[in-house]
Amino acid sequence: MSAVDEVIERNRDYAAEFTHGDAPISPNLPLVVLTCIDGRVQPARFLGLGVGDAHVIRNAGGRATDDALRSIIISSQLLGTRECMVVHHTDCGMQTFTNDEVRAKLKASTGASADDIDFMPFADAGASAEEDVRTIRANPLLPKDFDVTAWVYDVHTGRLDEVKVLE
Amino acid sequence: MSAVDEVIERNRDYAAEFTHGDAPISPNLPLVVLTCIDGRVQPARFLGLGVGDAHVIRNAGGRATDDALRSIIISSQLLGTRECMVVHHTDCGMQTFTNDEVRAKLKASTGASADDIDFMPFADAGASAEEDVRTIRANPLLPKDFDVTAWVYDVHTGRLDEVKVLE
Repeated sequence: MSAVDEVIERNRDYAAEFTHGDAPISPNLPLVVLTCIDGRVQPARFLGLGVGDAHVIRNAGGRATDDALRSIIISSQLLGTRECMVVHHTDCGMQTFTNDEVRAKLKASTGASADDIDFMPFADAGASAEEDVRTIRANPLLPKDFDVTAWVYDVHTGRLDEVKVLE
Repeated sequence: MSAVDEVIERNRDYAAEFTHGDAPISPNLPLVVLTCIDGRVQPARFLGLGVGDAHVIRNAGGRATDDALRSIIISSQLLGTRECMVVHHTDCGMQTFTNDEVRAKLKASTGASADDIDFMPFADAGASAEEDVRTIRANPLLPKDFDVTAWVYDVHTGRLDEVKVLE
């Protein structure tokens, strides 16, 4: 059985019991979360988000890329969010390679060049979350009262702790 | 009470009962899901994903941007996923504006120019999911046996349906 077949079977059970058809398009909380793609990082669970509660953006590392900024601008300026949590996490895959290593691996396995891609690895989850908060705060297209904070999620304890980022 | 204070209170309850500290860094299923930031779209719930089950990438619309491709390459080539579901959804915010409209709104509210940003709106969720599947399939840095499929999630019924995309 493929993974897709497996999760579609789970979806049929979910849809059969679905009761959230009237949740609104703008989130119940004025919150957008930026975090990693890691399977252990499930913001709906660790932040207790119900259906329709908050926007969630996810990319490898939870980095403040141009595409994440596109999503944050839409979230805040078109759909009303005013608080943003940047959540990086312990034991992240992005701490296990360098750009040179992943480029060499891709060249060997596919023959194609990835020399123009920055995969955005990092050494320290707290420092990278802080860096990304600064990038978001500096964006001139966000609301003046947009509040951006940095957090590290511990995949071994389920706990989220703040990394203070001064103005 | 801020939204952040609210969800951190929920996190303290979650962490107190947390039992998934030994979930592995590579997902239990070889699956990566690309979907939208919408608060009603919660893949952990509608696909029945447990902690550690699958990678999830999210951006406004669930589009196959360069940054989404960066994440898909890392997911597949470094962490072993082999199936990718592109999930767009009904009643998406991305169907409610054009690039010109959002650029004018941003200029009026912030004074800054967003003329160089493509916000990637679309008219039809099935067509946009199909377009993004084709973009991912064409990427030379992904594994040869990487399987990419298009889906539309109905926010009113909780059901996911496939959009067939021929090779």
